[in-house]
Amino acid sequence: MVISKVEMERKSWTTRVEAKKKTIESVQGLVDGVIIPTKRIVEVLERLIKPGDRVVLEGNNQKQASFLSKSLVQVDPKKVHDLHMIISSISRPEHLDLFEYGIARKIDFSYAGPQSLRIAQMIEDGKIELGDLHTYIELYGRLFVDLIPQVALVAADKADRYGNLYTGPNTEETPTLVEATAFRDGIVIVQVNEIVDELPRVDIPSSWVDFVVVADEPYELEPLFTRDPRHITDIQILQAMMIIRGIYEKHGVKSLNHGIGFNTAAVELLLPTYGESLGLKGKICTNWVLNPHPTLIPAIESGWVESVYCFGGELGMEKYIEARRDIFFTGKDGSLRSNRTLAQLAGQYAVDLFIGSTLQMDALGNSSTVTRGRVAGYGGAPNMGHNPGGRRHATDAWYNLKTSDDPLARGKKLVVQVAETFQEANKPVFVESLDAIHVKDQAKLRVAPVMIYGEDVTHIVTEEGIAYLYKSDSMAERREMIAAIAGVTPIGMEHNPKSTEKLREKGLIAMPEDLGIRRSDAKRSLLAAKNIDELVQWSGGLYNPPARFRSW
Amino acid sequence: MVISKVEMERKSWTTRVEAKKKTIESVQGLVDGVIIPTKRIVEVLERLIKPGDRVVLEGNNQKQASFLSKSLVQVDPKKVHDLHMIISSISRPEHLDLFEYGIARKIDFSYAGPQSLRIAQMIEDGKIELGDLHTYIELYGRLFVDLIPQVALVAADKADRYGNLYTGPNTEETPTLVEATAFRDGIVIVQVNEIVDELPRVDIPSSWVDFVVVADEPYELEPLFTRDPRHITDIQILQAMMIIRGIYEKHGVKSLNHGIGFNTAAVELLLPTYGESLGLKGKICTNWVLNPHPTLIPAIESGWVESVYCFGGELGMEKYIEARRDIFFTGKDGSLRSNRTLAQLAGQYAVDLFIGSTLQMDALGNSSTVTRGRVAGYGGAPNMGHNPGGRRHATDAWYNLKTSDDPLARGKKLVVQVAETFQEANKPVFVESLDAIHVKDQAKLRVAPVMIYGEDVTHIVTEEGIAYLYKSDSMAERREMIAAIAGVTPIGMEHNPKSTEKLREKGLIAMPEDLGIRRSDAKRSLLAAKNIDELVQWSGGLYNPPARFRSW
Repeated sequence: MVISKVEMERKSWTTRVEAKKKTIESVQGLVDGVIIPTKRIVEVLERLIKPGDRVVLEGNNQKQASFLSKSLVQVDPKKVHDLHMIISSISRPEHLDLFEYGIARKIDFSYAGPQSLRIAQMIEDGKIELGDLHTYIELYGRLFVDLIPQVALVAADKADRYGNLYTGPNTEETPTLVEATAFRDGIVIVQVNEIVDELPRVDIPSSWVDFVVVADEPYELEPLFTRDPRHITDIQILQAMMIIRGIYEKHGVKSLNHGIGFNTAAVELLLPTYGESLGLKGKICTNWVLNPHPTLIPAIESGWVESVYCFGGELGMEKYIEARRDIFFTGKDGSLRSNRTLAQLAGQYAVDLFIGSTLQMDALGNSSTVTRGRVAGYGGAPNMGHNPGGRRHATDAWYNLKTSDDPLARGKKLVVQVAETFQEANKPVFVESLDAIHVKDQAKLRVAPVMIYGEDVTHIVTEEGIAYLYKSDSMAERREMIAAIAGVTPIGMEHNPKSTEKLREKGLIAMPEDLGIRRSDAKRSLLAAKNIDELVQWSGGLYNPPARFRSW
Repeated sequence: MVISKVEMERKSWTTRVEAKKKTIESVQGLVDGVIIPTKRIVEVLERLIKPGDRVVLEGNNQKQASFLSKSLVQVDPKKVHDLHMIISSISRPEHLDLFEYGIARKIDFSYAGPQSLRIAQMIEDGKIELGDLHTYIELYGRLFVDLIPQVALVAADKADRYGNLYTGPNTEETPTLVEATAFRDGIVIVQVNEIVDELPRVDIPSSWVDFVVVADEPYELEPLFTRDPRHITDIQILQAMMIIRGIYEKHGVKSLNHGIGFNTAAVELLLPTYGESLGLKGKICTNWVLNPHPTLIPAIESGWVESVYCFGGELGMEKYIEARRDIFFTGKDGSLRSNRTLAQLAGQYAVDLFIGSTLQMDALGNSSTVTRGRVAGYGGAPNMGHNPGGRRHATDAWYNLKTSDDPLARGKKLVVQVAETFQEANKPVFVESLDAIHVKDQAKLRVAPVMIYGEDVTHIVTEEGIAYLYKSDSMAERREMIAAIAGVTPIGMEHNPKSTEKLREKGLIAMPEDLGIRRSDAKRSLLAAKNIDELVQWSGGLYNPPARFRSW
C-alpha cells in the first residue's frame, strides 16, 4: 500500500467551506446578520456570486423568485459572468436576458413554455450554451450528483430574523433546491415577502439558509391550474365520458394525476353528475396527486375525494383548502403543504394512472408538445407518464393491465393520452413524423425531445374512441389501433374500415357506442359547474378566483 | 347545478385535526410540553395510537427507531390492536412480535432481510396480513397517496426542548416519514438519544413534531456498508478488473451507485492501483451516489472522487467525512447530511450506472435475491436497477448505449449484474426458473418478487466474462449470451462453443483476454487496502471502525 503523505498533507479538503466563509465575510459591511437590505441586493449578489458559478434559480411553472432574477440581471457582467444557470422553468424574460448581457453562459432546465421560441433562437445563434433538457425530478436528482449548485436563489413567503422560512402553500421545489446547496457549502439566498417575529410554521430551518432579502414586491405566482369551465367544449365532454366509462370504471382507477388540460377538467366536473349516475363514487378517483384544481371542488364537495397531494398551490384556493383540511395536506397552521419533489415521486410510483393531453402524436403513439422552432422542454409529464420499471407493488388497476400468463408477468401503470384529432387551424394532431425530430437537429440535442414514448402509452382517447394499446405488443396492430381513432388526419386515413371492425370486436378499440355513451348526451349541461362563479358557489364562497377569471 | 346545502353544513371537513387535538389532550397529565418521560412511553403510546391506525415505524437497512418499537410491543392489545404497520425494513424481532401479540394486523414493507424466514412463515400461517412488497421510494410515495399514516414513530440523534430535531449523519428517511404524517394531521413521535439546549443544526423543524422521548439507549445503527477487504477473493478482483475495463472505461461511466457487495468493494479498491495504471483518473467514477463506504477511502485520498451523496451514514466514518467535507454533503456543523429519498431519486435519474450482485438469475437475465421460504423484499435496488423511462437528459455513458439510428432512439442507463456462476454449497446462480415464482405462490403475492428484470439488465459480469446484453433485442441471442458466461451451471451447459466464438467476434460477449486482462494478474496484491487496518491508515486515522471489524 502506498500513501503519499506529502499529497495528503498538501491538499485541503475543506476548500468549499473556506471559500464560503471568505465570501460571506466580504459582504459583512452590507448585510445585517442574515438580512440583506432590499436596495443593496445587486451589490451583495456581485460579491456572493463568482464567475463560473452554478446558480440554481427558483422558478417552476407557478412560483418564481422574481425579485432575485430581476436583481441578478442588474449585476455588472465584468464582475459576474459565465454563470451556469439551473432553472426548472424559464418563464421570465430576464432569465434569458442574463445570457444576452453576458452574465450567464450555460443553461440546464426543464421547461421553457413562455420563452420557448426565444431560447430556440438563442441556441441557434450561439448566445446560450444548452446543457440539457430534463424533467423536474431528474434535474433535482442532478443537483446532488453532477450539477451541484454553488448558489441557490429561491423564494419564500416569510422569514423570521434568524432565517427560518415559511414557504406557505407554495413550498414546491424550494426545500430541494436549498438542500442541495446548503449541505454542500453553497450559498442560499432567499427572497421573502416579509420578515416577521413569529412564523405560522417553519418549512425550512434557518440552519439551511445564509441570507434573506425582502423583495420589492411579492414573488410572481401563476394560477396555472385554473380552468374556466366556460371553455369546455362538447367534444371534451364526450372524451371525458369515455375516460370515465372506458378507462376509470373499466380498470377501477382509484389513484391518479390530472394535468392542466380542459379534457381532464371536464372529467373532474363530470364526476358528481355522470359519475354519480354510474354509481362510481368511492370506486374510482379517490386519491389524487395534483395541484388544487378549482374544477375539483364539486367532486370534493360531493364526497368523491379522500385525499389530494399537491406539487404546488393554486392562487385563490387558500381558504378553501384550509376549510377542507381533511382532504389536503396542510401544516399545523392549516395552510397547504406542497412539495414538488415528493409529489413527482408519488405521481410516478404511487398512482394508478397518469393522463395528459398532447399536441402531436405519431403513428406509433410517440407524442410531444414540442413544435417547430420551440424548445419547450417537459416539466413533469414524462416522469408520471411512463411505466415505472422500479415499481413492485400491485393495485387493482395496475394489475388489471397484466396481459400475459407468464409467471413473471406484471401489471402496468395506466398512461393515457387525450387528443382531438385536429388542433385549431386545421393542424392534424396525428402525424407521420414528430416536429421534435426537427427540433433535435435545430437545438443540437442528442435525443429528440419526446414527451411520452409510444411504448409507455396504454390508452389513447380521441373524439372518435379509445385505443387500448396495452392489449397489443405488435407494432403493426398498435398502428392500426391508432389509425382507427385518428379521424381524417393523414394517419387516420390509413385505417381500413374492415380491420377497424375487427379491432372493435376484439376490444382493442372502443367507440362511444361500445361504452354505452350516446354522443348526443355529451352536453355542457352535464358539467357540475359551468363557469367560475358556480365553482365559487360550490365552495361556499371559500374559493377566491384571481381577478382575470372574474368575468362573470 | 345542485349543491346539497344540508350535506355541506352537516359534514365536518376537519375531523382529523379535531381528533388529533383530543388525542393530544388525553396525554396532558403524562407529558411535559412536547417531552414524553422515558418510563411513561408505553402508557402514552396506548393513548396516542388508536385501533386500526396506520403507523409508520422508522427502520431501514441501517437505522432503527428501536426504543419505540420495543415500547410499542409492550402496549396492551386490548387498547391498541389491528394496527396497519408500514416499515421500510423489518429488521428486529419485535417488528413481528407486534403481530404475534395481536397489536398489529397488516403490514406494508420494503425489505425483511433478517426476518425474511419468519415473515414468510407468519404469512403462510395467516398471522400477518401482507399489504404488499415495495421499494423504499414507492413506499414513501404511497405515504402521500393511499397509505397516509396516522402516526409516525421515528428516531433522531438530538432534540431541543421545542422539538426541533438533529438527525445528524443518519438523516435517511426520517424527514420523509415525518412530512407525510405531520402535514396530514397525524401524530409524530420521535425518540432521541438526548435533549440539548442548542442543536448543532436543525434537520427537522419543531413545527413538524408533536412529541419527543429520550430513549433508554441510542437507536440501533447497523454498519451495513463496511466490507473488510480481507474477504475479497481473487475471483472478485478479476470481476472488478473486467468491470473497470470492460464497462466503466468502455462507456465512460462518470456517475454511479455501488451496493454492498464484495465485488464492488473490490472495484473501489482497484481504482487507485489498476485504474491508475490505465490512466483513468478523472475519466471514470467521479460522482457517486452511495453510502460512505470505508472501501472508498483510498480512491478518495488518491483524488479520484469529486462528490459522494449518501442514502445514510456509516458507523465510524463520521470524523473522516467531516475532515473531507469537499467530497461529501455536510451541514454547517460539518457532519454528514444523508437523505434516503433524494439519494434514491439521484440514484435513479442522475447516475450513469447501477451495479449490483444477485443470488439467482434465469436464462433471460431476470434476477432475484429472494430464495425459497423467504420473503425478503427489495430495498432500493429495483429503482436504481432499471432504465428510467422518465429520463430525458443524456450523459456520455447513457448515450453510448444507444444502438439504433431511429430518429427517436435514445440512450440507456447502465444496469450491471455481477454474479459468480456458483454460490457456496455448489448452488448454481444461473437457473431455469427463479425461486421468486415459488415465493409468489407461497406468500400469495400478485406478482413474483423479481429484483431486476432481464429487460433492464445491460451487462452481466461473471468470472467467465461480460455479456453486453444491451446490444441485442433478440431474446434468443440474449439467452445465448448469458449461457456463454454462465460456466457449468445448467444454463451455461446449454452454450455452444461455436456460437460463443461468434458472440465474441461480434463483441456481444467479452472474456478477460478480450479486454487485455490476464487472469493471473487478478491477485489481492492489487487491492489498495487489504484489510481494515490499511483503510484506517489511508484515512490518516480518521476512520474509526466498529469494534467487530477491529480484528487485525
